[in-house]
Amino acid sequence: MSKEITSQQEDYSQWYLDIVKKADLASNSKVRGCMVIKPYGFAIWEKMRDDLDKRFKETGHQNAYFPLLIPKSFLSKEAAHVEGFAKECAIVTHHRLMNDPNGNGVIVDPDAKLEEELIIRPTSETIIWDTYKDWINSYRDLPLLINQWANVMRWELRTRFFLRTAEFLWQEGHTAHATKEEAMEESRMILDIYADFARDIMAMPVIKGEKTAQERFAGAENTYTIEALMQDGKALQAGTSHFLGQNFAKAFDVTFLNEQNKEEYVWATSWGVSTRLMGALIMTHSDDEGLVLPPRLAPIQVIIVPIPKADEEINKLAQQIIKDLKNIGISAKYDADDKKRPGFKFAEYEMRGVPVRIGIGKRDIENGVVEVARRDTKEKMSLSIDCLSQKINDLLNEIQENLYQRSLEKLKNNISIVQNWEEFTAAVEAGGFVYAYWDGTTETELKIKELTGATTRCIPFEDITEEKGNEKCILTGVETKHRVLFAKAY
Amino acid sequence: MSKEITSQQEDYSQWYLDIVKKADLASNSKVRGCMVIKPYGFAIWEKMRDDLDKRFKETGHQNAYFPLLIPKSFLSKEAAHVEGFAKECAIVTHHRLMNDPNGNGVIVDPDAKLEEELIIRPTSETIIWDTYKDWINSYRDLPLLINQWANVMRWELRTRFFLRTAEFLWQEGHTAHATKEEAMEESRMILDIYADFARDIMAMPVIKGEKTAQERFAGAENTYTIEALMQDGKALQAGTSHFLGQNFAKAFDVTFLNEQNKEEYVWATSWGVSTRLMGALIMTHSDDEGLVLPPRLAPIQVIIVPIPKADEEINKLAQQIIKDLKNIGISAKYDADDKKRPGFKFAEYEMRGVPVRIGIGKRDIENGVVEVARRDTKEKMSLSIDCLSQKINDLLNEIQENLYQRSLEKLKNNISIVQNWEEFTAAVEAGGFVYAYWDGTTETELKIKELTGATTRCIPFEDITEEKGNEKCILTGVETKHRVLFAKAY
Repeated sequence: MSKEITSQQEDYSQWYLDIVKKADLASNSKVRGCMVIKPYGFAIWEKMRDDLDKRFKETGHQNAYFPLLIPKSFLSKEAAHVEGFAKECAIVTHHRLMNDPNGNGVIVDPDAKLEEELIIRPTSETIIWDTYKDWINSYRDLPLLINQWANVMRWELRTRFFLRTAEFLWQEGHTAHATKEEAMEESRMILDIYADFARDIMAMPVIKGEKTAQERFAGAENTYTIEALMQDGKALQAGTSHFLGQNFAKAFDVTFLNEQNKEEYVWATSWGVSTRLMGALIMTHSDDEGLVLPPRLAPIQVIIVPIPKADEEINKLAQQIIKDLKNIGISAKYDADDKKRPGFKFAEYEMRGVPVRIGIGKRDIENGVVEVARRDTKEKMSLSIDCLSQKINDLLNEIQENLYQRSLEKLKNNISIVQNWEEFTAAVEAGGFVYAYWDGTTETELKIKELTGATTRCIPFEDITEEKGNEKCILTGVETKHRVLFAKAY
Repeated sequence: MSKEITSQQEDYSQWYLDIVKKADLASNSKVRGCMVIKPYGFAIWEKMRDDLDKRFKETGHQNAYFPLLIPKSFLSKEAAHVEGFAKECAIVTHHRLMNDPNGNGVIVDPDAKLEEELIIRPTSETIIWDTYKDWINSYRDLPLLINQWANVMRWELRTRFFLRTAEFLWQEGHTAHATKEEAMEESRMILDIYADFARDIMAMPVIKGEKTAQERFAGAENTYTIEALMQDGKALQAGTSHFLGQNFAKAFDVTFLNEQNKEEYVWATSWGVSTRLMGALIMTHSDDEGLVLPPRLAPIQVIIVPIPKADEEINKLAQQIIKDLKNIGISAKYDADDKKRPGFKFAEYEMRGVPVRIGIGKRDIENGVVEVARRDTKEKMSLSIDCLSQKINDLLNEIQENLYQRSLEKLKNNISIVQNWEEFTAAVEAGGFVYAYWDGTTETELKIKELTGATTRCIPFEDITEEKGNEKCILTGVETKHRVLFAKAY
């Protein structure tokens, strides 16, 4: 175990912080609640972004860019939206600085007050629907399938790297449709994209479901979610997709002429995932030696280390291996720095989650082999140099699959099915998801949260169990058909 | 000539506006000076971004992300920087809204005033160098080669789509080096990347050079620039790269231990190009029929139109052509919409600058040919269906090259070499670049600007002419070696 980081067992929160810092993912800034995403962290985010972007484009979506600032009055146009949002946000009130007459740098020019304050977007529904008004006239303009990669800001009081920061990066899709059915289908289809991405790229299993009314996005008629389970037993909402009905179309007066030449309000969806996924990634796979990355998200997939130090022969073999790997699309790096010993390098690349390490020693070369170590299981093996790149490719696929299966196993073993309050509280205490009957009221939902700290995560699309259970609310005992997944959550 | 747009001759500014709107590149928003980049415009910007990003990465740069907001006090740390910048900017003063007690939506909560105001970044030198202080300790941490793709904001009074908007998108590189030589080399190397990109991808010739002291970036010791010439004879600064000396390192106290274990200040560069390049692109190639795009930046490279309308046989051939083109990396679209006539479609795709159009008629198929039209020269030709994709590929390359040569010709023909004030004013009036002697003082530079509207664009790296000229300042007559390119500029 690395001496540099706190163990998960000792203090999971501190372990998380240590990983973020020691794996060089992010650092603090002088701006309250805003972090700096460091190159290594950003390279992982870029891989996520590029893969998602491809999936959006393959399903007909186009990227665009809308203003960072939103007129204050826009936020109050959709009543539920302003209630659920928009309170804690960054507000621009002035547009000019001036030299301090007392000579102390610059001050805000009092004459440069804006007529109407501008809000740094916490999300862009309002400014986008105000724009759609000009873009949509007829059914021929629909569907409008648009996505934006952007920074957004919510003035969070308690922040944590990636999981909750005042400014964060995300994508926000905003689509407009001629029919309710088409919009609903879009919001479900996007949730599938998110879940497939989580599984195939992040190696992170998720549960797909619908949020309760209380947990819905402000202004949505329905919110779908993917919920993941972190190693400490807490849930994490990893992505949401909203069916917005005609709420924003009505608030911003966006109508279209249908094929019968009749005017109708447009139907809407919005959906997003953010740099929060970085936090989910860390807390799904990593361990006490540092970050563990699924190969598909690793900026460096293979690290090659000379043992004990580089010489001409080793350099030559290393370069050949890098070339062969590159040819089949695998990124590899050779660390020949002779000021660091192999053990130090091993620990460093383990910390950074490089999936595969290849060690090359002089005797290995004589024997026509290299030493290969995988980050996920820490297994070591001696592999013949023949067809090495193909074997490494297979190994990377195996690691990707193993990480997923391992996490899936963990998820499955951490869903409790409970029938009464006693079982419920014990299960919440133990951690993981808890599947329970609930009477369907917001009142009960809030009471349960108050008493246990657990919130409703979702009503799963697929039943967690085939057995019916007692069909009674765990808190009120009222007969009910509503069965929900609860958990303490990030 | 399309009836929908003003001709260049009639009103170049209005023509530009018409292109932006009719080619669906951008639209206005309700936020003063902020535009919406529409999907078609954004797709072009994405291609620019991806190509530049690849060039940066190939030269060892990594992307990262720094906060949007900058503490006000940071801006005054580098004296020249605050003087030249930071006055007209968006200032965040509060962090919370509240319901208006009078029931009129939301108001700013007076209790949520920030202790220190935050500025939306007009550029990120200050926040980045404040961060580098923590990242740089020893010569082993250098060079630090970082780039950021981000939105920035400058509260411009008079805005124009892409050319000057309050918010814009850009990349900003910020590098840190152990030696002055290395930093200077970096800033020159980046300028070469910009110029190569302009030539190879945008088909836009540029003149590389150094800015005069007056025109330097605030806080830079030297600013290098690429200057392009627009069709109306005005110059446009398309990208700049700055050698910052140790100014920011000193302002933010960023030092490192060199190999001799002695503490030194770090050397810096910064460099950027922005969505302004979209404006440069439009005003380099487009015409009275609409946008003209170099094939390497065209979201759709080939449009296929059935003549007069689609049928099974035409559809089949079109799909086959699309498939063949896709196989060699060419993007093509088939517009089989039978509610629009071919002539309408021709005009529409000309407006959008699609480089190549393929028309397929029934008789063409019988003859084994298709009708091919190129956007740049409006030439039409009949091409045999055999090996069509390869011919289209060659044609796209030819168009790319032709656009560059055409612009280069125009640039060369629009540089006047003048020896005195009379020649100078006449040349400035006529438009284009004017190469003239100047006494090297800021006073004269400003006087020339005041009298003619022309500014110094750059001191070219390569002499514009081998002939020496009279070596006398055009305004003051003082003997001088300084020879500068002047122009009226965007």
